[in-house]
Amino acid sequence: MAAMPSFDERERYLRELAEVLAIPSVSSDPFRAGDMRRAAEWHARQLAFGGGRVVETDGQPIVRADLPGPPGAPTLLVYGHYDVQPPGDERLWEMPPFEPSVRDGRIYARGATDDKGPVYVALKVAEAFGREPPVGVRFLLEGEEEIGSPSLPAFLERHREELAADLVVSADGAMWRPGEPSIAIASKGAVGVDLTVTGPGSDLHSGRHGGGVQNPNHALAAILASLHEPDGLIAVAGFHDDVVPLSDADRAAIAAVPFDEEDYRLEVGVPELFGEPGFGVLERLWARPTLEVNWLAGGGRFTVIPREARAFVTCRLVPDQAPERVVAAIDAHVRRRRPPGVEARVEAIPGAVRAYSIPPDHPAVKAGEAALRVVYPDREPLLVRIGGTLPAAAIFEDVLGLKTLMFSFSTSDERLHAPDEHFRLARLEEGMRAWAELWKRLARKWY
Amino acid sequence: MAAMPSFDERERYLRELAEVLAIPSVSSDPFRAGDMRRAAEWHARQLAFGGGRVVETDGQPIVRADLPGPPGAPTLLVYGHYDVQPPGDERLWEMPPFEPSVRDGRIYARGATDDKGPVYVALKVAEAFGREPPVGVRFLLEGEEEIGSPSLPAFLERHREELAADLVVSADGAMWRPGEPSIAIASKGAVGVDLTVTGPGSDLHSGRHGGGVQNPNHALAAILASLHEPDGLIAVAGFHDDVVPLSDADRAAIAAVPFDEEDYRLEVGVPELFGEPGFGVLERLWARPTLEVNWLAGGGRFTVIPREARAFVTCRLVPDQAPERVVAAIDAHVRRRRPPGVEARVEAIPGAVRAYSIPPDHPAVKAGEAALRVVYPDREPLLVRIGGTLPAAAIFEDVLGLKTLMFSFSTSDERLHAPDEHFRLARLEEGMRAWAELWKRLARKWY
Repeated sequence: MAAMPSFDERERYLRELAEVLAIPSVSSDPFRAGDMRRAAEWHARQLAFGGGRVVETDGQPIVRADLPGPPGAPTLLVYGHYDVQPPGDERLWEMPPFEPSVRDGRIYARGATDDKGPVYVALKVAEAFGREPPVGVRFLLEGEEEIGSPSLPAFLERHREELAADLVVSADGAMWRPGEPSIAIASKGAVGVDLTVTGPGSDLHSGRHGGGVQNPNHALAAILASLHEPDGLIAVAGFHDDVVPLSDADRAAIAAVPFDEEDYRLEVGVPELFGEPGFGVLERLWARPTLEVNWLAGGGRFTVIPREARAFVTCRLVPDQAPERVVAAIDAHVRRRRPPGVEARVEAIPGAVRAYSIPPDHPAVKAGEAALRVVYPDREPLLVRIGGTLPAAAIFEDVLGLKTLMFSFSTSDERLHAPDEHFRLARLEEGMRAWAELWKRLARKWY
Repeated sequence: MAAMPSFDERERYLRELAEVLAIPSVSSDPFRAGDMRRAAEWHARQLAFGGGRVVETDGQPIVRADLPGPPGAPTLLVYGHYDVQPPGDERLWEMPPFEPSVRDGRIYARGATDDKGPVYVALKVAEAFGREPPVGVRFLLEGEEEIGSPSLPAFLERHREELAADLVVSADGAMWRPGEPSIAIASKGAVGVDLTVTGPGSDLHSGRHGGGVQNPNHALAAILASLHEPDGLIAVAGFHDDVVPLSDADRAAIAAVPFDEEDYRLEVGVPELFGEPGFGVLERLWARPTLEVNWLAGGGRFTVIPREARAFVTCRLVPDQAPERVVAAIDAHVRRRRPPGVEARVEAIPGAVRAYSIPPDHPAVKAGEAALRVVYPDREPLLVRIGGTLPAAAIFEDVLGLKTLMFSFSTSDERLHAPDEHFRLARLEEGMRAWAELWKRLARKWY
């Protein structure tokens, strides 16, 4: 049985982390191809003792490494990503997004919490165990998480043999709250559609032609308004067909999570919370499917009847909704509800993902809870869910048949995808200790 | 009694018209202030024989001139405007918008038909009559028609005495069809509102927060969809309260105008025409109030629940709708129909105008018809209506108590407000002859 590693090199850790955070590895920016390569190579160097290497894909390269475990020990596939979101408007940042700075025990930079900090935790645990980890470990760090992991499925298919493992442990995702250790056991799926309503052959003067033609803005509003009942229920026939109802156990588990609706209302800044009747706020956020109109646009602020009006609609899915069935239901709804005088078209966005979940009594979840209890002895770990989507978990299950344990030391309040993104430095050490405990526990036969 | 003038200086007419069309007098463009001044001075010089002068207002200057008529003759206030719309995307023009060119008997330039060509008709008629017009004529050419005539009411108030007249004759407006002489006896009023729906304190991630809050895009769509019944009837309570119903005579007059619905459908390029039930297409276009959502916008084409969503809504009004009552009805409707979880605000746009009309048997209309019959002996003049709005006519009536005869030689197909705006040169001569006939006829006691 391997001993626990010691993690006593804080200065070097901070220096290395700042080094990788300074690389603007923005996967959505074609001008950052060189930085993407630099970030991949930095991670491969960190894993040199495990054969760390940069492997080509159809898109951004993937970093791979393999640390064999003791004979008969299980093998983990450690997942994370080295790409980051664009910084957005840099004027909204207190310090430049790619000049990491430390304040109040937090390191600030784009990618600090999503996902370079949490990935660094895994790198340092591997480094500390060195050539003798208690389990076999294969690293797979992708560079396309922020753009929907388009190359990951084909990469997994192509390298299926050398990726043989018993479980994926993800350094991506986020803990629920800073003070409460948690493991996410479910994430929603996602599917998006573009909706285009077309009317006249060209923009028309609304004075001359008002009353003669259907206004595409009116038709779009009518279609969008018909997608929900006034009480918030999704009104698309067939949308809920495959939804697995929440069990009493699910509802009890969600109810067990401390959640103050008034605190949440103040956090999001709305006059009142709103959503599907019959479910609590946390049930809706975590375990009920949603359909949101993210974008609507048509015409201009002058007297025009526009040629077309458009919307972008995304749904978050729960088990067992199939993205293509949801798209078909929306398409049929729009055909049925299209007002006269216009045409309406629904087009699915590529990259839909189904929901993912791991049973709360899965041995990997139990091992994760045990590891968290060692690091946070005063607080019982919570089993939580994610309203967002982690495409990789569904992809690993679909292609490799592997469950994923989300074991991130990011916290959901660390401004991911926003200005002043940061990562709590205390989580670095807590994370290393917890990951080491996890690996030790997963070394015992459980699979 | 004054004789008919002769109009036999075509070369000079074309040269002068090209000269004024070359001045980019775009009133909405602050960088064109110098060009606005040049255009005003050009018109004042044209009217030098009548004391032509540039008079300051709170905004763009107004061109004035006064030609006294014979003792006891009535006085006309001749209205037009020297400002033009912005050219828009100049790449869409076959020739540059401020380099006038002649093709196929038409002169192409921004402002050719709206309104410099039709104004030039009036200038040349005045010039031809010289110091002996059959009626008193006061010219008033404004430079703010394209921005809603904001300075006109105060100018009229301030110069009420020296503007004393019996009738306004407008060189603005447009004839219905090129082959059919017509007089517009009604134009709709206009009023606009901004509608803003606000929800969360900031943009939210639609994965994390979907199901927790009302989406402002949904609320906006629901409010906008509630403004009309599915059959096209405006569903705002109180909106129709002051609408004067169409009389049998009105309906008969509209039915007498040749109008082919299929031709119109093809012209605007829609799969089917659409509008309020119970009325014909031309009745809806000309004589029924409309409410059009010109603009809607919210969020972006990514996974966001936006902080706010907005719309711009304009109504075209008929007699006796008061703009402020219509705004109040919309405001009350939005308050009633606001979905939970958001706030909604309606703000009126300044510059609302009520509808304008002149009775079809008004002596000025009869004089106009008689003048048209002289120039177009084969075609009986049509009495038509305008779906758009001519603010000046309502302003003249409200401030000076004067009716306006719209007697323009623009044609509605001459691409006003669009690329390749033009004016038929034949209309120059026809217009001069008709205006001269009109002045002669209005010299007879009729008021």
